[in-house]
Amino acid sequence: MKIEVCLSQALYPFYKQENDIVIVVDIFRATTTICTILSNGAISVIPVASIEDARKYKNEGYIVGGERNAKKIDFADFGNSPFDYKKDIIEGKEIVFTTTNGTQAIEAAKDCKKLFIGAFSNIDALVKECIEIGGRVVILCAGWKNRVNAEDTLFAGAFTEKISLLSNVEYGSDSTRMALEMWHRAKDKPIEYLKSSDHYNRLIKNNAEGDIKYCFEENTTHITPWYCKDTNKLRID
Amino acid sequence: MKIEVCLSQALYPFYKQENDIVIVVDIFRATTTICTILSNGAISVIPVASIEDARKYKNEGYIVGGERNAKKIDFADFGNSPFDYKKDIIEGKEIVFTTTNGTQAIEAAKDCKKLFIGAFSNIDALVKECIEIGGRVVILCAGWKNRVNAEDTLFAGAFTEKISLLSNVEYGSDSTRMALEMWHRAKDKPIEYLKSSDHYNRLIKNNAEGDIKYCFEENTTHITPWYCKDTNKLRID
Repeated sequence: MKIEVCLSQALYPFYKQENDIVIVVDIFRATTTICTILSNGAISVIPVASIEDARKYKNEGYIVGGERNAKKIDFADFGNSPFDYKKDIIEGKEIVFTTTNGTQAIEAAKDCKKLFIGAFSNIDALVKECIEIGGRVVILCAGWKNRVNAEDTLFAGAFTEKISLLSNVEYGSDSTRMALEMWHRAKDKPIEYLKSSDHYNRLIKNNAEGDIKYCFEENTTHITPWYCKDTNKLRID
Repeated sequence: MKIEVCLSQALYPFYKQENDIVIVVDIFRATTTICTILSNGAISVIPVASIEDARKYKNEGYIVGGERNAKKIDFADFGNSPFDYKKDIIEGKEIVFTTTNGTQAIEAAKDCKKLFIGAFSNIDALVKECIEIGGRVVILCAGWKNRVNAEDTLFAGAFTEKISLLSNVEYGSDSTRMALEMWHRAKDKPIEYLKSSDHYNRLIKNNAEGDIKYCFEENTTHITPWYCKDTNKLRID
């Protein structure tokens, strides 16, 4: 297997290859929250990149989760916090979802062979599934407005470490090693490590300290959400 | 002062701000070699992004340095090795220069307030000059075909460390801290550290081991080449 890390969605065109598995990662908070939504019983998540598209779905009666710049969009039912999506509200529903970075990254990579949603909450399940499929895996860090961020890079490092322990893995390029080394440095206390990072402080300002802790809890679910091209939906079945 | 690190030239549009100083870095080997050319007495370096433009200059009688994929371009007088540019050949001349990554990065950032060419060979001189000018400094890593690489990131970390010791510095975003930490890990033996990196191995394959050592020698010159918009030339005066 080969593991490649792409540190910003804007760099994806320079890393993509035929037949890649792509894992889209936006730890704070889109991909963590998508895992929570589907783990809590929603049928699917419909990722949309633009606010306009989200509004159309809202007008058709869908439940809409929407965030820009770490704040809930005015017309949305919920924002980007995983705690917004309680089981009793979303079970059996389809949720439309748009965020600053995560849903744009899905849009960028949706033509790959298989697109998964990655978070610390489903990291071991994803490692297992990628090993079963085999081939080249690109961990696509959503970043913040196309800039590189620490939390997505840490996930990339953690995933690389875990899959390396279970499979014979080749590293794609320098950024894979950079992410792995960053994770080695941070893994004992990742939240402590992140205290000087940009988005940690952005979330603290928006009173989302609880989200930060939640987003670094490993293996709270075993689902591996994937993008279905035919329906433009994220599913787990 | 504020120090920002942009890990790939393709990400520069997402980092740029008004009135930035930009330091273009392509350690292996474009910016190191530009420092050598000007240090060895060339009047100027004319950076051109395309092979076609380089050929036009060649037909007009200019000395042309040109490289793609770590190899000399067929019609060029020299390649991208700093050892190609001996004082007795280039003194008093204007050198046209085009490389895989470095000259593209100059092109991307040439509208900034002041563009410098950075390398380990002129790092302290650059730190001093940036402190004198003040403001926001973006270290623009050329990367390899828009992908992030280790050696340019190491320079960014080294520059950040050095300027932080001499001036009150604020870090721009997560990538600044990532570069700084990488440098801390590598600084005692940077070449040893790079042995698993992509471009190290690409250069070894092209018999350029001597270049690698040269490119990590600090402060062999005190020049700070800058880009003159009016003439499209890199100069030191």
